[in-house]
Amino acid sequence: MKRVFAALIVTALLGAGAAQAQTKTRVVMQVSDADSGKWNLALGNARNLQKGLGAANVDIEIVAYGPGIGMLKSDSSVAANVREAVASGMTVNACENTMAALKLSKADINPAAGYVPSGVVEIVQKQQSGYAYLRP
Amino acid sequence: MKRVFAALIVTALLGAGAAQAQTKTRVVMQVSDADSGKWNLALGNARNLQKGLGAANVDIEIVAYGPGIGMLKSDSSVAANVREAVASGMTVNACENTMAALKLSKADINPAAGYVPSGVVEIVQKQQSGYAYLRP
Amino acid sequence: MKRVFAALIVTALLGAGAAQAQTKTRVVMQVSDADSGKWNLALGNARNLQKGLGAANVDIEIVAYGPGIGMLKSDSSVAANVREAVASGMTVNACENTMAALKLSKADINPAAGYVPSGVVEIVQKQQSGYAYLRP
Repeated sequence: MKRVFAALIVTALLGAGAAQAQTKTRVVMQVSDADSGKWNLALGNARNLQKGLGAANVDIEIVAYGPGIGMLKSDSSVAANVREAVASGMTVNACENTMAALKLSKADINPAAGYVPSGVVEIVQKQQSGYAYLRP
Repeated sequence: MKRVFAALIVTALLGAGAAQAQTKTRVVMQVSDADSGKWNLALGNARNLQKGLGAANVDIEIVAYGPGIGMLKSDSSVAANVREAVASGMTVNACENTMAALKLSKADINPAAGYVPSGVVEIVQKQQSGYAYLRP
Repeated sequence: MKRVFAALIVTALLGAGAAQAQTKTRVVMQVSDADSGKWNLALGNARNLQKGLGAANVDIEIVAYGPGIGMLKSDSSVAANVREAVASGMTVNACENTMAALKLSKADINPAAGYVPSGVVEIVQKQQSGYAYLRP
């Protein structure tokens, strides 16, 4: 009997805590503008999140899609900064839908980047699993 | 007694599952720029959400307000695409606050569009009821 | 025994209701563009939230950072509107990270504004505590 009560209490507390129980802050950032100023702002925002929260306490995923895909091309003006971002623990993903539409192959993309099938699906699903959304 | 336990367990599980129990992914998209490139991007993003998740598995509401209201004018460059979006199951809403400010009447707006009293109130309330937010 | 049941039920309901139990709608708005049109749009959006929901029913925090910090300079074209926004009950915060990067001091900033150490940390943390996010 006591075990049943204990199980119920644990279940109830899990219910109450589900939204807050993440120990890490999680953030999905959108880059969808063909604007190198925005790319720098996004990377700077991500660094400030690491600085403000502690790099170990925040999961940052940058998703580049549509006109923002240029950020992740190998010859992008911010290519070195993208490499540094990944080296610092961030995830930076290119949208394969956009790549197909623009006839870009992985050979055109920064080797530090990862890939997602659809940038918008990724952004939406991360929000629904508890990530905050930032659109610089 | 068993029924009481069963009820408690169901209640606890409902608590735990409240945030995830939606069977459909729900997305509210904001269009607030006077930029036909952004209008096309928004419509393309919405199509990619349908393609990536299955049209039956996602509820998409596009809200146009402020300088973005131009997307929904009858003579907009994307008027046909707005009709197709609605035909495919999306909701596309014009902000009546913006229409009043710009002296637009329903006669000026794409017949496929719907209306909300305030675009920003709509976007905020949808988020608070569990919609993901996308701002292309 | 009844008390234990009652406690369990209350705990379960708290779990279920945690996300919706806020009586006020809470909104964090981002201003990160060096664009006075966007500053006016943001302030207008905020007024429309107050009008649509009732000023007593909504907590609005506007966070200006990066290129958006210009909105909160004392000589900004919208300085009087920022004062009115604060007088109407909104919070308007300047990002101290941005101020440091641009060598701005509090003497340069609208006296009606408040301050946050990091604009992006503020926006992310408010979302994670239940605020809706609006990026005009």
